[in-house]
Amino acid sequence: MGKVHQEDSNVKEKNSELSLVRVKGTWKSKTGLKIKDAVDCVSAAKIYESISEQGTTWTVVSPITFTYKVTETHSLLDPSNDTLLLGHITDPQQMEDIKRSNKPMRRFVVVDQEVYKIYGPKLTEYLEANDVVYKVLALPTTEENKSMETALKILEEVNNFSLDRRTEPVIAIGGGVCLDIVGLAASLYRRRTPYIRVPTTLLSYIDASVGAKTGVNFANCKNKLGAYIPPAAAFLDLSFMQSVPRRHISNGLAEMLKMALMKHKGLFELLEEHGCMLLDTKFQTGNNVYGHNSVKVASQTTRIAILTMLEELAPNLWEDDLNRLVDFGHLISPALEMKVLPSLLHGEAVNIDMSYMTYVSHESGLLTEEEKQRIISCMVGLELPVWHEEFTMELVQKSLQDRLKHSGGLVRMPLPVGLGQAEIFNNISYDILQKAFIKWCEELSVSSDSTCDA
Amino acid sequence: MGKVHQEDSNVKEKNSELSLVRVKGTWKSKTGLKIKDAVDCVSAAKIYESISEQGTTWTVVSPITFTYKVTETHSLLDPSNDTLLLGHITDPQQMEDIKRSNKPMRRFVVVDQEVYKIYGPKLTEYLEANDVVYKVLALPTTEENKSMETALKILEEVNNFSLDRRTEPVIAIGGGVCLDIVGLAASLYRRRTPYIRVPTTLLSYIDASVGAKTGVNFANCKNKLGAYIPPAAAFLDLSFMQSVPRRHISNGLAEMLKMALMKHKGLFELLEEHGCMLLDTKFQTGNNVYGHNSVKVASQTTRIAILTMLEELAPNLWEDDLNRLVDFGHLISPALEMKVLPSLLHGEAVNIDMSYMTYVSHESGLLTEEEKQRIISCMVGLELPVWHEEFTMELVQKSLQDRLKHSGGLVRMPLPVGLGQAEIFNNISYDILQKAFIKWCEELSVSSDSTCDA
Repeated sequence: MGKVHQEDSNVKEKNSELSLVRVKGTWKSKTGLKIKDAVDCVSAAKIYESISEQGTTWTVVSPITFTYKVTETHSLLDPSNDTLLLGHITDPQQMEDIKRSNKPMRRFVVVDQEVYKIYGPKLTEYLEANDVVYKVLALPTTEENKSMETALKILEEVNNFSLDRRTEPVIAIGGGVCLDIVGLAASLYRRRTPYIRVPTTLLSYIDASVGAKTGVNFANCKNKLGAYIPPAAAFLDLSFMQSVPRRHISNGLAEMLKMALMKHKGLFELLEEHGCMLLDTKFQTGNNVYGHNSVKVASQTTRIAILTMLEELAPNLWEDDLNRLVDFGHLISPALEMKVLPSLLHGEAVNIDMSYMTYVSHESGLLTEEEKQRIISCMVGLELPVWHEEFTMELVQKSLQDRLKHSGGLVRMPLPVGLGQAEIFNNISYDILQKAFIKWCEELSVSSDSTCDA
Repeated sequence: MGKVHQEDSNVKEKNSELSLVRVKGTWKSKTGLKIKDAVDCVSAAKIYESISEQGTTWTVVSPITFTYKVTETHSLLDPSNDTLLLGHITDPQQMEDIKRSNKPMRRFVVVDQEVYKIYGPKLTEYLEANDVVYKVLALPTTEENKSMETALKILEEVNNFSLDRRTEPVIAIGGGVCLDIVGLAASLYRRRTPYIRVPTTLLSYIDASVGAKTGVNFANCKNKLGAYIPPAAAFLDLSFMQSVPRRHISNGLAEMLKMALMKHKGLFELLEEHGCMLLDTKFQTGNNVYGHNSVKVASQTTRIAILTMLEELAPNLWEDDLNRLVDFGHLISPALEMKVLPSLLHGEAVNIDMSYMTYVSHESGLLTEEEKQRIISCMVGLELPVWHEEFTMELVQKSLQDRLKHSGGLVRMPLPVGLGQAEIFNNISYDILQKAFIKWCEELSVSSDSTCDA
């Protein structure tokens, strides 16, 4: 084995870098490029040619740029707000063309069935008031039917609607499951059809809406099939949160706390101080006992959570870099979540993982006792579970072994080092993991029923 | 409608460009960036923040770079040639690690059923000689089962094989249909698993292997679902062509002729002079009446065809630019191909389209009578049909109307302007299209039975 490759270094080889220049609409490859008048432009793409006795290899290096918008707005379903219909457009000329056109707009909308029960009338009213030719497809979007079959069902309807994939983005309104399935379906249709995410849960507001991932479950594994194709736009409106149950607000706060612990002390302090208020007010701006302060805190916390998330995602949209701070809380929790399904929500499982990792951090000398206490108290204040009996040392070991396999031989464990700062570690010993586990159980196994002091 | 957006220009707006810098493994967004010592690197990604009374919009601009190899080699299934197993690797460190490792390599291979009948024993011998732990899945890959069901069937087997998506690329061996389905399946698995294309037909050698497109048919439409994800590598070996029927060699030559007419007079002249020899020798380098010349012509023609194709694809991998010379022959032919299925092969339908367009070009004064004649004679020499009774003016009109709809309101018609040069036209009149059609029928409707002079 390896004969041909071993010979490679001995044979005559000719290597050239080819730049690509456009001349009258035709791309030409050029070595030793001198720009002439006739050249319209030079592409960022390159071709490297290597000729040897074994044959010729062209290495193509081709950059693609994804551009997408994340917009926090309000009154998204107010007929006078055209964000839902036009907010994704970046080209002013296209915007003008649409506004001047007398053809009605066409939109295909997929809504989670439960969300449709609450917001269906408002949505159809909005579409009709704006003279939109529409099809609204209300579907149950739960983990159980987060499948390729559901995606294909959506695609059949999209195809029947005879969608114009250049100008008519598919709109998804719902929680993370709904946004993930529709995102995948749209990404497959004609190899890429733009889609729009409208999250209606706090978890998807903070998490699923911001990134590029789509997916469905397959062969009993979460999100085994999917794509990294960001939406054209995500439109975020906190008013949807008023219909989210309190436990699901907590669920979303867990992912917000993750960003706070990894990257932003200010966000941590806001959650520490105002966690209970956020649960009580559900991020609503209406009259409540907390007054104007609640408006400010709601918008500050979501703003920081989204921006810190974007900071980590934008440079690493396709997860080529495996060192990801946003994996905090996601090393052991997937196995826990699957083991006890459906008793823990995603954010709850993530929080239990983060709680244990806080002890690992403390045991490694990365957090003081006081910092550790503050983190755990904050979690309790957010009404999140901080311990679970099914979270065992065996589960920890098995999960970290799996992680080693899927992340290039390194465990890449994000850990807080002080409040709002983190680093990635590859050398935490079994001894530390176990000591942390014992202390974690001693201190938290009884206090796992959380209460809110407010 | 449009109220909120109209107000935008009147309200206070704050716009900032945020650069992303990495400090100790954490990405931070910075305005007015000054690089300091602590910064590891600045990402090519950017976030643009725009704050107004309507809310906040972050526009994320995130570049992804695709790198893939196209390698023309020989003796691909010779056990001493490790291209199939290692040729996709670009990182020298990774190559060394694999070569030093004593763990056997693992590969999942999908092969077209008919190809398996011919090359199956050689393939398994190759894998066993190289101590590969393998699963070979032989499947019928025809237009009829180019479907998501077939892709899911492959994915189930991939999952059972427990593939490591970082280091074990899926290998596809077959014609375009096989390469397209496997490419889609791999692209979906864990949101992206590398795959390798080994084309066994001339059409896929020249066309499908070189680009980024994957796909399956859906709702009676060709390639309605798919992705733009290039393979890690395409390994091209002309020896597979010896088992390709003569008519299918012609079929592949049509796509080669397309590149010649659009971009390369030298390639056109090679096809004009040696077309019949290429059909007779099937691009084989063994002993034949044509001697050494056949080796040279075979490698010259494939080399030029691939490089000219790469020139057009690399700068436009995701087809964001709708002005594509490679669309020549593909404006009317899809409708013709579907109409007469299965009587015309893809390349044959493309050639009939190109033949008509040559008349359109001549009628528009872009080609001389002699150039037109040479093109048609070359097609006949390649044993390709140049006329078809189902190719009607109605079909032309309907196809161009569809094209208008799906390519942003312009017809974007590539036409040859002289031999080996082309431009894209948007203003060819109905009158010209019809005059060209009448002349095309007059001159070619009787001569559509082609013969080879050699």
